[in-house]
Amino acid sequence: MADGLVISIDGMGGDHAPQSVVEGLDVAAQAHAGVRFLIHGPRAQIAALLDQFPNAKRVTEIVDAEGVIGMEVKPSQALRQGKGTSLWSAIQAVEEKRAHAVVSAGNTGALMAIAMFRLRLQAGVHRPALVAGWPTMKGFAAVLDVGANVAADASQLVEFAIMGEAFHRAVYGVSRPTVGLLNVGAEDQKGHEEIRAAARLIRESGVDLSFHGFVEGDDISKGTVDVVVTDGFTGNIALKTAEGTARLVSAFLKEALTSGPIAMLGAAIARPALMRLRERMDPRTVNGGVFLGLNGLVVKSHGSADGPSFAAAVRVAVRLAQSHFRDEVAANLAQLGRTSPTAATSEREAS
Amino acid sequence: MADGLVISIDGMGGDHAPQSVVEGLDVAAQAHAGVRFLIHGPRAQIAALLDQFPNAKRVTEIVDAEGVIGMEVKPSQALRQGKGTSLWSAIQAVEEKRAHAVVSAGNTGALMAIAMFRLRLQAGVHRPALVAGWPTMKGFAAVLDVGANVAADASQLVEFAIMGEAFHRAVYGVSRPTVGLLNVGAEDQKGHEEIRAAARLIRESGVDLSFHGFVEGDDISKGTVDVVVTDGFTGNIALKTAEGTARLVSAFLKEALTSGPIAMLGAAIARPALMRLRERMDPRTVNGGVFLGLNGLVVKSHGSADGPSFAAAVRVAVRLAQSHFRDEVAANLAQLGRTSPTAATSEREAS
Repeated sequence: MADGLVISIDGMGGDHAPQSVVEGLDVAAQAHAGVRFLIHGPRAQIAALLDQFPNAKRVTEIVDAEGVIGMEVKPSQALRQGKGTSLWSAIQAVEEKRAHAVVSAGNTGALMAIAMFRLRLQAGVHRPALVAGWPTMKGFAAVLDVGANVAADASQLVEFAIMGEAFHRAVYGVSRPTVGLLNVGAEDQKGHEEIRAAARLIRESGVDLSFHGFVEGDDISKGTVDVVVTDGFTGNIALKTAEGTARLVSAFLKEALTSGPIAMLGAAIARPALMRLRERMDPRTVNGGVFLGLNGLVVKSHGSADGPSFAAAVRVAVRLAQSHFRDEVAANLAQLGRTSPTAATSEREAS
Repeated sequence: MADGLVISIDGMGGDHAPQSVVEGLDVAAQAHAGVRFLIHGPRAQIAALLDQFPNAKRVTEIVDAEGVIGMEVKPSQALRQGKGTSLWSAIQAVEEKRAHAVVSAGNTGALMAIAMFRLRLQAGVHRPALVAGWPTMKGFAAVLDVGANVAADASQLVEFAIMGEAFHRAVYGVSRPTVGLLNVGAEDQKGHEEIRAAARLIRESGVDLSFHGFVEGDDISKGTVDVVVTDGFTGNIALKTAEGTARLVSAFLKEALTSGPIAMLGAAIARPALMRLRERMDPRTVNGGVFLGLNGLVVKSHGSADGPSFAAAVRVAVRLAQSHFRDEVAANLAQLGRTSPTAATSEREAS
């Protein structure tokens, strides 16, 4: 049940906005009964679109915002000039407790900067983290940080572990996700001092995590653990390397299947299966990177999202908002000894 | 032409040794006229195998070495107890200038430790690097370091760039390979201080490199540059993440093509093309990781190499030994201001 949940939507973010955004809300409205949307953007333009999508229209309220932050705008510029834009307005709704989460397919740097500035860090969190859902042999892994920071010390890595674990439970429904630290070997003496110190801290601090230990790069896709923790530099490079590799293999496959008339015949017959594969590997279907660690839930949809994949990002926001994500994070952070459980605020407090 | 070249071979390294090694030499002997091999291992066992492979037998001399270093042996243990083993003996032949390069499919840690201990660093090099050949949309990239070290400062990154560039030219025959530094964004102000300092150092030191600037994780498979430079922690994680992703996509493809009778029919018809794809993506065919920066050429073949893929590693060794790799590296390092060109020694000096 999701009664009373309100999700704030940046109506103008993304390559195909606002069309793809409203299409996505139409899909999401059918999937999540009881959820309402606040969509931010130029009223006339959004209203005209909503007229074409009755499912969305029924549960959506427009908040007029004329400005738009382009994809090329720098974070610092967005902070200075972003007020009044659809993105700023969408985040403000979460800040002012009119919504439980915000979803945007817009400029990532601008989203992170404005969200950080307006929502501030959750008590006990020292750095925010960007988490990605990563398809594996066994389902999905949550990998973080994939680029909010370029470095992380041991206690920040432990904070990421705590946030990633609660995120995985909320979004993928695994009751006790396993957690691994990304390293260059499984043995205790391998890797940077920060990583080894983080492993010790997890083991000794009494935080409530099912900790597997170190994992290597190939363990991510293997699904060895549910949550893979790393610094934002390594995580960003791992994520983009994986995307590049998936594209390379797809290109090789296409080349193989167009290499001659017999291969082409086989490919034509297997086409429906190959199309499903293509969809499964499309980064847009694995949608909804989340910016964790703030006083509010901030979901980033892929910039090239179409309607169904924007709806996938909305689903992530709904699941997080329905969960006890921030309470669980706060309780576990308190165990780390640097915050008290009373700092925790429920995701539902805005309702 | 490769007349007078001698390649030293660890006869007992790898999961399928010595059978796969001798098979590989049989293939290599036909491919590289004029090259001779010194194979190290138990004389009777190797001699019996060579009797089955006449091409290999014609150009191979056995150096008796009874001991074997297992795959599970730690580097420190290999250093203490490795003397007299096939791996140690194979490296010793390079040290004593009886061979121009060594190839082993054995224990990587042991190979690196013994090679480092016996061959020592080339003048001007402060850290060795492990380089991997990486298939791309345009051919092959050389990526380094993929795991010899866990960290690298700016000048070490520049040394890796210099070695990787000469390696790419020697092995892939591109006369002026382009070089990029792996980072989380293309802009100058992105990433760690070490990486930004390395970029400045390349630009300001007058080293002879076609420097592209920063590249991101997805640029590796895209083939944006020929040489991708990074520290051993990031490089190892990128390489293993890519291997894991390729395996995941293969598994998804297999699942798609066995999802029903029609898909299976299509796959059966396209089977020859799919088999070629499989071969292209097999990490064993992209064989011959090289341990750069020592006074001697050390090529690591994949532990699970079969005959043809061991031959691929031998080809890398032959190409490097035929090239001016170490002279070029020495000349460029001299430009960095920390070594003189006279420190350069030809790869051919042993002949």
